[in-house]
Amino acid sequence: MAVPDTMRASVLHAPGDLRVEERPVPAPGPGDVLVQVGSVGSCGSDTHYYRHGRIGDHIVREPLVLGHEAGGVVVGVGAGVAEELLGVRVSVEPGIPCGRCAVCRRGTYNLCPDVRFFATPPVDGAFCEYVVVPSDFAYAVPDVISDDAAGLIEPLSVALWACRKGGVRAGCTVLVAGAGPIGLLVVQVARALGSAEIVVTDVDARHRELAVAFGATATLEPGGSDLVSADVFVDCSGVPAAVMSGVGAVRAGGSAVLVGMGADEVTLPVTLLQNREISLTGTFRYSNTWPTAIWLAVRGQVDLDGLVTGRVDLDHVADALAPDPADQHVKIMVRPAGV
Amino acid sequence: MAVPDTMRASVLHAPGDLRVEERPVPAPGPGDVLVQVGSVGSCGSDTHYYRHGRIGDHIVREPLVLGHEAGGVVVGVGAGVAEELLGVRVSVEPGIPCGRCAVCRRGTYNLCPDVRFFATPPVDGAFCEYVVVPSDFAYAVPDVISDDAAGLIEPLSVALWACRKGGVRAGCTVLVAGAGPIGLLVVQVARALGSAEIVVTDVDARHRELAVAFGATATLEPGGSDLVSADVFVDCSGVPAAVMSGVGAVRAGGSAVLVGMGADEVTLPVTLLQNREISLTGTFRYSNTWPTAIWLAVRGQVDLDGLVTGRVDLDHVADALAPDPADQHVKIMVRPAGV
Amino acid sequence: MAVPDTMRASVLHAPGDLRVEERPVPAPGPGDVLVQVGSVGSCGSDTHYYRHGRIGDHIVREPLVLGHEAGGVVVGVGAGVAEELLGVRVSVEPGIPCGRCAVCRRGTYNLCPDVRFFATPPVDGAFCEYVVVPSDFAYAVPDVISDDAAGLIEPLSVALWACRKGGVRAGCTVLVAGAGPIGLLVVQVARALGSAEIVVTDVDARHRELAVAFGATATLEPGGSDLVSADVFVDCSGVPAAVMSGVGAVRAGGSAVLVGMGADEVTLPVTLLQNREISLTGTFRYSNTWPTAIWLAVRGQVDLDGLVTGRVDLDHVADALAPDPADQHVKIMVRPAGV
Amino acid sequence: MAVPDTMRASVLHAPGDLRVEERPVPAPGPGDVLVQVGSVGSCGSDTHYYRHGRIGDHIVREPLVLGHEAGGVVVGVGAGVAEELLGVRVSVEPGIPCGRCAVCRRGTYNLCPDVRFFATPPVDGAFCEYVVVPSDFAYAVPDVISDDAAGLIEPLSVALWACRKGGVRAGCTVLVAGAGPIGLLVVQVARALGSAEIVVTDVDARHRELAVAFGATATLEPGGSDLVSADVFVDCSGVPAAVMSGVGAVRAGGSAVLVGMGADEVTLPVTLLQNREISLTGTFRYSNTWPTAIWLAVRGQVDLDGLVTGRVDLDHVADALAPDPADQHVKIMVRPAGV
Repeated sequence: MAVPDTMRASVLHAPGDLRVEERPVPAPGPGDVLVQVGSVGSCGSDTHYYRHGRIGDHIVREPLVLGHEAGGVVVGVGAGVAEELLGVRVSVEPGIPCGRCAVCRRGTYNLCPDVRFFATPPVDGAFCEYVVVPSDFAYAVPDVISDDAAGLIEPLSVALWACRKGGVRAGCTVLVAGAGPIGLLVVQVARALGSAEIVVTDVDARHRELAVAFGATATLEPGGSDLVSADVFVDCSGVPAAVMSGVGAVRAGGSAVLVGMGADEVTLPVTLLQNREISLTGTFRYSNTWPTAIWLAVRGQVDLDGLVTGRVDLDHVADALAPDPADQHVKIMVRPAGV
Repeated sequence: MAVPDTMRASVLHAPGDLRVEERPVPAPGPGDVLVQVGSVGSCGSDTHYYRHGRIGDHIVREPLVLGHEAGGVVVGVGAGVAEELLGVRVSVEPGIPCGRCAVCRRGTYNLCPDVRFFATPPVDGAFCEYVVVPSDFAYAVPDVISDDAAGLIEPLSVALWACRKGGVRAGCTVLVAGAGPIGLLVVQVARALGSAEIVVTDVDARHRELAVAFGATATLEPGGSDLVSADVFVDCSGVPAAVMSGVGAVRAGGSAVLVGMGADEVTLPVTLLQNREISLTGTFRYSNTWPTAIWLAVRGQVDLDGLVTGRVDLDHVADALAPDPADQHVKIMVRPAGV
Repeated sequence: MAVPDTMRASVLHAPGDLRVEERPVPAPGPGDVLVQVGSVGSCGSDTHYYRHGRIGDHIVREPLVLGHEAGGVVVGVGAGVAEELLGVRVSVEPGIPCGRCAVCRRGTYNLCPDVRFFATPPVDGAFCEYVVVPSDFAYAVPDVISDDAAGLIEPLSVALWACRKGGVRAGCTVLVAGAGPIGLLVVQVARALGSAEIVVTDVDARHRELAVAFGATATLEPGGSDLVSADVFVDCSGVPAAVMSGVGAVRAGGSAVLVGMGADEVTLPVTLLQNREISLTGTFRYSNTWPTAIWLAVRGQVDLDGLVTGRVDLDHVADALAPDPADQHVKIMVRPAGV
Repeated sequence: MAVPDTMRASVLHAPGDLRVEERPVPAPGPGDVLVQVGSVGSCGSDTHYYRHGRIGDHIVREPLVLGHEAGGVVVGVGAGVAEELLGVRVSVEPGIPCGRCAVCRRGTYNLCPDVRFFATPPVDGAFCEYVVVPSDFAYAVPDVISDDAAGLIEPLSVALWACRKGGVRAGCTVLVAGAGPIGLLVVQVARALGSAEIVVTDVDARHRELAVAFGATATLEPGGSDLVSADVFVDCSGVPAAVMSGVGAVRAGGSAVLVGMGADEVTLPVTLLQNREISLTGTFRYSNTWPTAIWLAVRGQVDLDGLVTGRVDLDHVADALAPDPADQHVKIMVRPAGV
């Protein structure tokens, strides 16, 4: 495993301006591992940076490498890390918290104010050949997990976290708004946790079909959720009308989780929230999800490879970030070493 | 304890139309007790029915006795109830759930669809001389608890429930919007639970002074909560701007509880809810609060009598429901047997 | 559905003294349903009463009908119950709590001091043709659920409750001691909840084989659990050595649930409990399990029929209670209407 | 704040062999602070090391500085730490977890396998003039907190953690076995959290009197807890008979927490644990307690100075570790700079 001195990286310089550049291969510090990237998922937030150069207050001021859903193989170890890790295939958790502040120590490390997260300015991501992470954030995966699946443990974590926050459990009825990649993963996780009914709403008939293929027990067009009595509503659409309608479908004592990003302010049915004592929360990334997410994939309870509809190399990252809508992609993977 | 056949009751016939009428004293059925009412608090919901004849979908179609914050003494027992209860002073929990449905069996009996709640059409309340409740809903109170305080265990329960739902605990910072009776009780409960900082916002300087007297560590005018980093926000105002501002003051991982009733729909800062993973919920009455609420009053950790600023008899219930604002009342009690 | 006046019942008069007798068919009171019993599981506690005439302080002083795992069909309704229930196939929850005491109102109704539980002196059970229960304790089941399975929702509830108390969840490692009917159901529930590893210990090689057939990922002979690092240990053996060994296999922060009944007092590794902060608890029946348990069976996540190894009619209940060990039965069902 | 090059330290060389030695003042590394020790509590575990040279598997093989309950003032900062901390009075959390392993990331950092804890071989403690800790483990205290109290935040944390694990809350009945320093702190924390009844058992009448002085509502001699119906039992005695008796006094659905250290194996009433579904656990140090513990002391809800019955300088540490029983000390503080 000879590691070269330089590597290729896809770098965002401005909205729409991606350039493949030669960069030094980073060196693993104490406790770190160097991962040769096998596959990286292209995510909606990457697309947002690519198109707008910012997400809210996070602004791309310096050239930035995108990509935060990465799988690969350990090809270098820093001081204090066992050499046995060399050659181990891993899934990368892309947010590194400080580990010492009060927020981290409570176990809510996703909320750490000092977290360094891949592909969030000014921290580079994984659309490149090599990345460095602390060894505790590179999780070994068995061979039944493909490189693509290793990368997609990240969005699976988003879905798993949403299900945890909402209290999805055996026997419950889950309403999911939006059947994009995260919605489809929520459907699968809900099924894996033993949910009885999984109802999905989406404007797009093809997305509804996909939802059924991945385990939804029923689908509805938006606005049709009136008759549902959901234990848990998970919004993966970010659409205010879907949030309003979904919260209205939650039973007394149930919960609602807002995953999809959209308008900063949304009108909510507060009297209904009160009369039914609905618990509503939003999610921000995830914490403590990787081992479970990997198991769900290993045991076949979640199908990650089935989400992949396209693969590109580093020279075609733009095609992954802004695909032709007519192609109806679910998930496109970037393969730094080639497709 | 000779119980007469008839009693006097204050009956609402239409908005603004209260009449004192002679009614039969109700007979306790199996498992019930008959309570001679000593004191009943006048609540904002009573005022709302008095003024508008309805609260949302609850419409006063038949003459209705208002009042649901009642203390008194047991003067009769139904079949199967120990005679030892005769003469026992009690606080009345005014909502009687079915006890058998799935909602009740989960312990969330406040959400029982078949609950019968005092002073909620068509169920009569306690602005009268005698009421009947199941013996399990009449809680013995020691003599250190006055009749007024026995009645005010009910709003104390509202505050205790809000604090429980919000996770108020030792060492935390609580932000309370609105220093009316419920807000002042939330302040006291938060203090009793060991909160470190209790910050209260209210438009009215006199309310803010009261809040300090009852344990607030700081007060602010609305809009000034920007610098607070609250573990828990409890809205007791029902004012959309206060809700928006209060939720914005919650720290990452904190919670917000909406107690105050106002607009059915409120605009909420959803991106902020997501980025901070704030848990937001509303409360509907309470469950399993009476024994603890009584203890808080018995141990002197909460001062209920101090909230009482006026007392009226059955002939002056309208004065309790619609007092002169210039009098700046906090809580007015109705004393069926006379002031 | 003409219901006769009398029915046949298997009545325990003394240890080993079972007699089939003619008894009046009970009449459903207000809120009740009359259920024609289709199938009833024979449980270890039934066998214990049959052999010893008592379980702890519960002593059979009057003739008693055993059996508490019952499925059947509604053939009569009491006042206030919808006639639409007639003809509906149901699973019976056999413990009827008071619904009003503090314990019930907290949602822990299994601990109600006034619970009336089938086949627990002096309350008769279901080894007979008809039983009466409140309508809220007879749960409709679809046709995919056999009469046997409807009865076995009860032991499935025991297993589901144990898994809930222990916090069994997706991705976790569960160690189960004892592969009798409850142990095999815990295995299945753990699998349905997404557990990653399910390790079973049992002295009997055939039981261990069954455990694998129902989803265990590994089995061990007792004493071999040293190398396990379990998130949750569920004892279904009641054997002190298994409890000691199992608790010792729990990881720091994990939990142990004692379901199996054995010695009243057991020596436990307290220093280890402290150093690892293991949460240990026991289970007593279940609460709020039926709807979820039925769903697990309906969705095929738990196989109940596969546990049934024998069926007898009312004249052969003794064969179900004390089968020939050589037959190695797992679960024998009593079919009041004949096999 | 000129810091010298060397300092005096009380060093344990063998059981009973304490020597005051000159040692280099440690240098704060990146992220660390150097604390001049003002006061350090003498704890039972220190005494145990002093007498026996070991606690279980923790064996004093090299000379060891004891003491882990430390308060002082920041007199030096390492790289990356704000100079504003210089001169700040602090309470020291004496266990430094790795912050990166799965156990830490779940928020249960007290269970971190790589934790470095003061006065636990081979990590030196605080019976010396200066100690170094990461800045996140030195918590600022206001002047209302004495140096002694700053040190005693540590045993207060033990008590707070026990109350959290047991679910001590407003209105509950707490049974505490053992009125040593930890027991007396549990009493105070229980009171601060709003407990209704706090019953203490101890063999020693004087300890029982102290318990009342610190807030117990009743005391009993051991064996007299039969009539208690405790929501939470906290054992601070480590005596098997007290544990057995205390667990037997817990109500259905209640909990038991074992804090006191004693025999490795203890016989427990398992059938009772099952029938009442009692949750039993042990505690190992604490996590996330300091800020709340400090607040409890600042607000005067817990009296720490009142526990101090003696003070010694570094030359008399042995007097703190093995005081004359006739003196009936509660807590002796070591003051490195002199009494």
